[in-house]
Amino acid sequence: MSAVALARTGQAMPLVGFGLWKVPRPICADTVYNAIKAGYRLFDGAGDYGNEKEAGEGVRRALTDGLVKREELFITSKLWNTFHAKEHVKVLAEKQLGLWGLDYFDLFLVHFPIALAYVDPNHRYPPEWWGDDGKSVTLQDTPMQETWTCMEELVDLGLAKNIGISNCQGSLIIDMLRYARIKPQVLQIELHPYLTQEAIVKLCKELGIAITAYSSFGPQGYYELSMDRGATSLFKVDAVTTVASKHGKSPAQVLLRWATQRDIAVVPKASGPERAVENLKSDGFELSAEEMKAISALNCDLRMNDPADIDPRLGIFA
Amino acid sequence: MSAVALARTGQAMPLVGFGLWKVPRPICADTVYNAIKAGYRLFDGAGDYGNEKEAGEGVRRALTDGLVKREELFITSKLWNTFHAKEHVKVLAEKQLGLWGLDYFDLFLVHFPIALAYVDPNHRYPPEWWGDDGKSVTLQDTPMQETWTCMEELVDLGLAKNIGISNCQGSLIIDMLRYARIKPQVLQIELHPYLTQEAIVKLCKELGIAITAYSSFGPQGYYELSMDRGATSLFKVDAVTTVASKHGKSPAQVLLRWATQRDIAVVPKASGPERAVENLKSDGFELSAEEMKAISALNCDLRMNDPADIDPRLGIFA
Repeated sequence: MSAVALARTGQAMPLVGFGLWKVPRPICADTVYNAIKAGYRLFDGAGDYGNEKEAGEGVRRALTDGLVKREELFITSKLWNTFHAKEHVKVLAEKQLGLWGLDYFDLFLVHFPIALAYVDPNHRYPPEWWGDDGKSVTLQDTPMQETWTCMEELVDLGLAKNIGISNCQGSLIIDMLRYARIKPQVLQIELHPYLTQEAIVKLCKELGIAITAYSSFGPQGYYELSMDRGATSLFKVDAVTTVASKHGKSPAQVLLRWATQRDIAVVPKASGPERAVENLKSDGFELSAEEMKAISALNCDLRMNDPADIDPRLGIFA
Repeated sequence: MSAVALARTGQAMPLVGFGLWKVPRPICADTVYNAIKAGYRLFDGAGDYGNEKEAGEGVRRALTDGLVKREELFITSKLWNTFHAKEHVKVLAEKQLGLWGLDYFDLFLVHFPIALAYVDPNHRYPPEWWGDDGKSVTLQDTPMQETWTCMEELVDLGLAKNIGISNCQGSLIIDMLRYARIKPQVLQIELHPYLTQEAIVKLCKELGIAITAYSSFGPQGYYELSMDRGATSLFKVDAVTTVASKHGKSPAQVLLRWATQRDIAVVPKASGPERAVENLKSDGFELSAEEMKAISALNCDLRMNDPADIDPRLGIFA
């Protein structure tokens, strides 16, 4: 399986993983178990996805059944916005590991460079963006440096093999590198042909930070949330379907290959077992330079996931 | 004269000022003196512009001649990248005040969120981006927080009435607000119809940070530097010239008014006394909502000034 070697540990991060965002709790354990059976080794979870316990059940069943060894898996999770303060990072990492039933994460990411007021997990979990009223967003003055220092301690304690960030811009990454004892190993960002992110991909390559793309299918995962900004499905645009026909592949496979061919990891969520296999088998062909270029030409800097839509003070992509 | 009130001090910052970038040293004192005579009250300088001594001569002559009182002027300067460390910020602010012959700046900005290796001003000043070899760029691990804490001390000491930033993205500004004892009062950014910066303007409005646009004429100031990216002059595009003809104004006046009408300050450099007056008198008319929109529709996120062109590690806009 294709992988990228992470800069500090040399650990291999698979280029194609399984994304757990929006995987419903009732089917999550089976989904993870079957994905492992199908050959998946990387699972991309997050506290915010609300299904870590069930994902962990799937993993543990696969381990018990001898499908795979722990060290062959690459489990990613993410710290939520409400837990950025120094007294909460480790507590939450341990809570999340407890839900998964694991001793360590292969990768633990700061989900957003956004610090929100603490919500006791015993009161409400996952707490999402809003207060108990479901409307108010309360910022908290925890600088990224405080959070990152705690993330580094997770590595010291063996709770995370690698640490990284998500949804960060260049200027913030550059600032983090000035104080980081352990540099971010991975940046996970929205990246697809409508949002090619060339500048930050170039910067991260230069800085030795691996990139994981989320929402590789662009608006696809957002239609059900009415967060698609009216964008045409990437499964239907000519630049993608033409290339797909030519190679005898699905548009989904072309979209994934367009990323992985540049060493950008992907974490698609498959809507069923056939799709899961299809996504995993997306690295067995090569797009030509012209095909890559034609797909990249769809770029219109169209971002689906922008917290500024939730609250204008959250303009982390401005 | 139109002005914006800065959030912390309430001080009025004129909406139209005079930009000193690329004003040649031999004519700088006269240029500033004559600009004051013509009615300018705000001058936008920087250590990096290399003409602070001469600008200061113009100011002092105007004060001596009684054209204006110090408190009627608004003098902005900027801290260069090589002086971000805690042992250098105050020394440089004092050196720059010495060059101007002033006791305080009305506004002192961090020129870029970029920390470069220190260069002794006695060795080379202004030091620009490169080492003595004219090629190498040496980063320095000074976090923005260290620099900002020193900027706050300049306010405590009365060396700067207001402090701010330049060339920063949203995520970094949001992080700064978490640790800032004195918030940035102003953000100065490249902003013109090819780079309308709507997201960051909206964020700063929300956060109470005033915006100053630089390069209001887009590529115009970059033709002589071959840094114009092949862009058509904004003085010649239909959307601007049509509006200019209709109002009996120059394209330059329309471009400035397009910004100031939204309370975005501008600091154009005029190429001669007539142009200086023309720029200053750019606020005596109103563009319709349709005209504003037609000009904004020129946006193509085209940035002229990007340090990533100098060194790929400087991707502060990625």
